[in-house]
Formats: sequence, C-alpha cells, structure tokens
Amino acid sequence: MSQTDGSHRPNQSTVLDTGLPWTGLLGRAGKTPKGSQIRELLAVTARPDVISFAGGLPAPELFPVEEIRQAADEVLRADGAAALQYGPTEGWQPLRELVASRLSRRGIGCSAGQVLITTGSQQALDLLGEVFLAPGMNLLVESPSYVGALQAFSPHRPSFVPFPMDEEGLAVEAVARWLEAERAEGRLSKAAFLYTVATFQNPSGVTMSLDRRLRLLELTRTFSLPVVEDDPYSELSYGSSVPPPLRAFAGGEDVIYLGTFSKVLSPGLRVGYVVAPQPVIDRMVLAKQGRDLHTDGLSQRLVLEFCRRFDPDAHVARLRAAYRVRRDAMLDALRHHMPSGVEWTEPGGGMFLWVTLPEGLETAALLADAVERKVAFVPGAAFHVDGSGANTMRLNFTNSTPEEINQGVVRLADSVRSRLERLA
Amino acid sequence: MSQTDGSHRPNQSTVLDTGLPWTGLLGRAGKTPKGSQIRELLAVTARPDVISFAGGLPAPELFPVEEIRQAADEVLRADGAAALQYGPTEGWQPLRELVASRLSRRGIGCSAGQVLITTGSQQALDLLGEVFLAPGMNLLVESPSYVGALQAFSPHRPSFVPFPMDEEGLAVEAVARWLEAERAEGRLSKAAFLYTVATFQNPSGVTMSLDRRLRLLELTRTFSLPVVEDDPYSELSYGSSVPPPLRAFAGGEDVIYLGTFSKVLSPGLRVGYVVAPQPVIDRMVLAKQGRDLHTDGLSQRLVLEFCRRFDPDAHVARLRAAYRVRRDAMLDALRHHMPSGVEWTEPGGGMFLWVTLPEGLETAALLADAVERKVAFVPGAAFHVDGSGANTMRLNFTNSTPEEINQGVVRLADSVRSRLERLA
Repeated sequence: MSQTDGSHRPNQSTVLDTGLPWTGLLGRAGKTPKGSQIRELLAVTARPDVISFAGGLPAPELFPVEEIRQAADEVLRADGAAALQYGPTEGWQPLRELVASRLSRRGIGCSAGQVLITTGSQQALDLLGEVFLAPGMNLLVESPSYVGALQAFSPHRPSFVPFPMDEEGLAVEAVARWLEAERAEGRLSKAAFLYTVATFQNPSGVTMSLDRRLRLLELTRTFSLPVVEDDPYSELSYGSSVPPPLRAFAGGEDVIYLGTFSKVLSPGLRVGYVVAPQPVIDRMVLAKQGRDLHTDGLSQRLVLEFCRRFDPDAHVARLRAAYRVRRDAMLDALRHHMPSGVEWTEPGGGMFLWVTLPEGLETAALLADAVERKVAFVPGAAFHVDGSGANTMRLNFTNSTPEEINQGVVRLADSVRSRLERLA
Repeated sequence: MSQTDGSHRPNQSTVLDTGLPWTGLLGRAGKTPKGSQIRELLAVTARPDVISFAGGLPAPELFPVEEIRQAADEVLRADGAAALQYGPTEGWQPLRELVASRLSRRGIGCSAGQVLITTGSQQALDLLGEVFLAPGMNLLVESPSYVGALQAFSPHRPSFVPFPMDEEGLAVEAVARWLEAERAEGRLSKAAFLYTVATFQNPSGVTMSLDRRLRLLELTRTFSLPVVEDDPYSELSYGSSVPPPLRAFAGGEDVIYLGTFSKVLSPGLRVGYVVAPQPVIDRMVLAKQGRDLHTDGLSQRLVLEFCRRFDPDAHVARLRAAYRVRRDAMLDALRHHMPSGVEWTEPGGGMFLWVTLPEGLETAALLADAVERKVAFVPGAAFHVDGSGANTMRLNFTNSTPEEINQGVVRLADSVRSRLERLA
C-alpha cells in the first residue's frame, strides 16, 4: 500500500456482502436471465469418474499443442509487441484475409472486408442479437436449437418462433407457410432473422438436405428474410456427402455465415468469425467495440501462424478419422444396449447425436439417476423454446474414448430401463 | 469442395452485396448506434509520420515480450491441452485466486469467488450494462467520462446524468443534491449506478480526493446507490500520493471494482477482471455465458505464469519510471509552447491529460488542421453526454517518446495559435 494516504487505513479483512440490497437493485432493470443447464452440468463433467456425454468439448488429446507452442514461439519472437498491443475491432487483417481465402476454397466467395473476427462464434451470435433484435420481434429457430444461441438472443427478448426438424433438417415448408401468413397479416417486418445450424446440427446431429437449402434461399429472397447460418461443424464430416453451406450457393450471398476455429483447432483460443454483407459487418463492428474492443491479438496470430506453418487440412483429417470411430462406437453401443422404443439420429458428422425416449419419460428426471450411475448428458428441454422435448437428450461423442462411450451407453441404457420399469 | 453434392455447383465468384435491403432490415430493431471518434482516429494513428496523442495505447517497447514468450513456452509444455480447451465462464480458478491475492495486498479484501475474469475490462462494462440497465434508468457519470464506457452502456438506452469534475475529481456534493432531489420525488429507484474512474481518470487525468471518496461511500450507503469503480490506472502512479481505491475502504465492500492487465502487462491479451458482491457476480457470469462463453484460456494462463515467474511489481515500476518522463515531457512542452488562455490538467499518473482551449475554439474543427500538421488528439466532445466539452481535448502521453511529445506539442500549439488568429 505504498501509494495510500496514511491518514486512513483501508480495510484489510475479507468482507461479507452485507451492505446494499443487491437482489432488489438487480431486479430494477426488469430482466430475468435464465441459467443454462449446460453450466451446472459442466461441474459434473469435471468429476473424473463420470463419463460425460454432456459437454460440447472436442478431444483435448487431439489438440495440436506442440504446433501451437511452436507458433507461439515464432509469433512472439517475430511480432511480439504487435501481438500484445491493442488491435483493430474488425480483427487482424492477415487473419481476415486467411479466412476469406480458406472460405473461397469452400465455395464461399467473400472479401476480407466482409469478415469480422469474433471472440468465438458465441460472440458473433451476441452481436447479431444486438444488431437485429428488439423486444417482440420474431426470431425463427429450429426446434431443437443450439442452447448457446438461445442464450445469446434471449436478453433482447425476441418472440422465438420454433419450427420442427426431421431427418432432412428444418421443415422449410412450415417456414414458408408461416412467412406467407405473416405477410398476409402485414407482420412480415417483425421477422428479424432465421437461425440455422444447417450441417451436423447442435444438438440434433441432423443435416439440412440440398432441396431444403435451395428452398430456404428462395424464401430468403421472396420474403427479404435474413438467414444466419451457424457452421462450426461442417468440416467435421465422417464420410457421407453433405451439401455445401447455404452461403456457398449462387443466391446465398446474403446469408450471414458464422464459422470458428474452436472445433477444428482450439476452443480455448476463442477465435471465430462472421461473413456478412458490408452494412451488417459495419454495425457488428460498432457493437463489438462496446463489447470487448477487439479479439485477443496473440490468439489471432497463433491461428494464422498454425495455418501457415502446418497443414490445417491434415489436422482436420485426423480429427475426422478419430471422431468417426467415436461416432460409430456410440451408434453401435446404442444399437446393442438401448431398450426398444428409444430412437436416435445418425449424424454424418459433428459432435452430437440426439436421443428420443418414449413419451412420458422425462430426461430431466432421468439425469439424476444417470449421474448416480456415473454418466451424464444434456436433457433436451433446454434446446426448445416452447417447453417441448422433455423426453429428448443430447449426447456428445467427441470427448470420450470408444471404450468410455460403450461403457457410458451401457450405464445410460441401464438408467433408461430402470426408469421405464418404474413407469410401467 | 470434396464434401459437396455434385449436382449443384456453389458460386465460386466474389459476390456483391446486391441482395436484401440491409439498411431497412437493420433499421427494424430501432437502434441507432453511434460511431466512436476514437475508431476513426486510430486510422490516423497508424500513419507513421503522424505523432498521435489520440489513442490510449501503452508503449509497446515496454511490453515484456521475451518474458511472455517464456511463459507461453512453459504453459504450452506443462498445461497445453487445458489451455486450449473450453474453460469455466467465471475464469480460470488459479487466476481468480491470483487476482484476489494481489488485490488483498492493495487493501481490497475479496475472495476468488468474488472475482470474475473478463475479456478486457471493456467486457466488464458491457456486462454491468446488461445486468443493471434498462431504457430510461438513470446512469450517473463523470463529465467528461471514459468514452468506451459510454459506448458499452449506450445500447441499453439509459438516461445519462453527468456531473462536473474539478481538480479534486467528481463533484460529489452535486451528486448528493441530485440524489436528495430524486428521493424527494420518489424517483430514487431509477438510479442504476454511478460510474467513476476515480484515479488518474480517462480522459481528464484527474484523481478524486480522499474527502470526496469518503463522502461518495457515505452516499452509496445512504441512497443504496451502486458505485462502479473502473481502476485501470492506479498502479501507474508517478510519485504523488494517491488515496486508496474506493473498494479498499471500510464501507467500500459494496463497490463494484474493475481492474485489468491491459495497462500493466498487455492489452492485446484481453484479460480484465471485476470484483463484486456475489449476487452481482452471479448475474454477470450468466450474461458472459451468452457473450463469449469464457475468456481466452491461453491468455489467462500467460498472465498467471508471467506473474509467477517474473516480478510484476518490478515491471510496473519500469513502466512508471518511463511514463513519468513522458508525462513530464508533455507538461514541459505545453508550458513552453501553448499560447496563453490554454489550460491543462497535471495528472499524478495514468496515461492522459486534458486540455481546455479558450471558449469558442472547437477542437473537432481543430483536428483537421492538426492532422495536416501531423499530430493527432481526441476532441473532448466524445467524452461528454450533454453536448458540452467542444473546446476540450484528450492527450495521451504514454505512446510517444519524449522527443516526439515535444515535437507533437509544438505542432499542436501551432494549430491552436493559427486557429486563435483566425478567430480573432
């Protein structure tokens, strides 16, 4: 305390929160945030004896740690002061150029100026909410939808409009009928945007078919409906042919496209990106300034240096090979151990599959029993905005070994059977 | 495009934004974001022939680049996979503990659980806005105030209530009178919080006196008024005795305290923190989940490893020694070169000083002339919420050498003189 004025001693003791009436003070703004079930479950995940299918974690043993270490060494030797200094809100220009160039190879034509680097793609969702949403505007979502997106959008208090999914993904014709009805009532201007994880969806693992993609792009133009395509998983494909991203089609140039290095490199570095028409990027940049000024400068450079010095495609190929085995292990185990009446999706890629139990069997109630048997999952209700999905759950297959997956599914199947017997 | 379905070719060409009516679509949410003058000025800053007092940049030549490189090497060797994996929203626990322990040494008693790691302290401002503000609530600010805070709070459309400052900082008695009037009218519950940079303020360089700190803490209790103390600069003290942070006093336990490693280590790493009562932390954590899930895991570990392996206090002492010389160079140059009628503050620390020109001389208009003479600053109006401050400007003294500072002030004084002559 060398700098303190000697006449008053600051209080050195640890202090209890006994002062202001915080609950009341926090209530004044009239907001009622919902906690995420995922958060509480991550506590369970951390226990080493629990086999967790709950998180959305990539396999840490596949992180290219040594390559990142070499990249860090090089970046800090060659460009250290710049990496540690404030940087532009839009992102570090060479990384924006790398993203534009890599996307072009995947059919997504864009300029570096249309790329905004974000603090994970979670931040892109947050910024889109800030830019497009206001209380009462309609936000079209898949049901189920990514819970983190729902959490990012919720503070803006939109009216969520959920649409069902089947094995071909979002029920696009249901969207068409809704849009027509809204237009007939003169309410089309209340439709903020449609949010889709079109490929290997989180949480369902389902991929939108080619025909539906084309139809959705048609609806976009007909109804001037912005579409946000969140695409963290499409590079994690396990063999099956998948349609290109919506943004890659002729007529898809207006799609707002979200990507990330979280799933193909490292989520801890928090580097994502969004590709959007210039007016949208400009507004998102202003919003990002108020949020965090800019994304971590060292991590942006590590991503670029990794991609320059090493072969990111070869790394993704390794991930695909490993995750394919895990997906297959989970599908095999489900087939062998789950009682009849239980159904699940068969994802062609990504990190998740989706299990539907017989009606009346609530997965939220099942979870306590499952955790006692040392296996965890996310109950499906959190991914729905309309209270449905009580008999569904999300399973992650990338963060456990094939042996753990088999053992975990055995435990899970035991929980389900025991619950079914109690219900019978 | 190995994964694409062969029947449709995605469009490979770069595409113009000719599709949806984005301006109209973006207008639907009814938000009108203000651009920041600082953003445009950073473009000027980048030109090497311009001496810029505009940004708020630390001196990059003082970054401990080699130490950070060694820390990165060690972290990635010892704990690489964890550094690259998803982490808890609250922050990495060992870093929360380090912050609590370092703050305790400065008289700020808190537990690690009361510390939330944020993506720079800019994010702490954003989260506080989300948690406390709603349209029409009153937000008490210093005039001038930190422009980044105004930008973080503005999306929530509070009513800004500015209070004047003098050489002892915020006019706390004016705050007292306002609070009493609000209470008399039964409107006290509309007061969201008071935001202050009490020590070496950005932009003014002024420090709140001890008496005013004590009186402000008294008001906090009397009126149940939350106080947010943003304290990025207090460690950058150039010799004068300064009072402890508000949060360090007995009776200051309810102050919400924001700190950062941006100014004392590196802003590019984007690691800040907030200390607050548990109910506030809990709400901020929920908000942060929707914003960016968690702060960069590698950067959090780099900060801790740097503090463990090296002597952060010795590093801060080096910064203080260098910045003191620069502050003195700027004060000397102003005394030597500025025409009479120009006034400025004499900050005891921090990164900025504040210049007031004769009434009628608008710094926004002066800037174009100054930039032509290859010197830049931030016009003061941006730091005011009530349209005042047109004859003020903020000067940064940490990002230029003493020689550049002298040369830049010569150019700036020439601009002012030329402008004065035209007005005369």
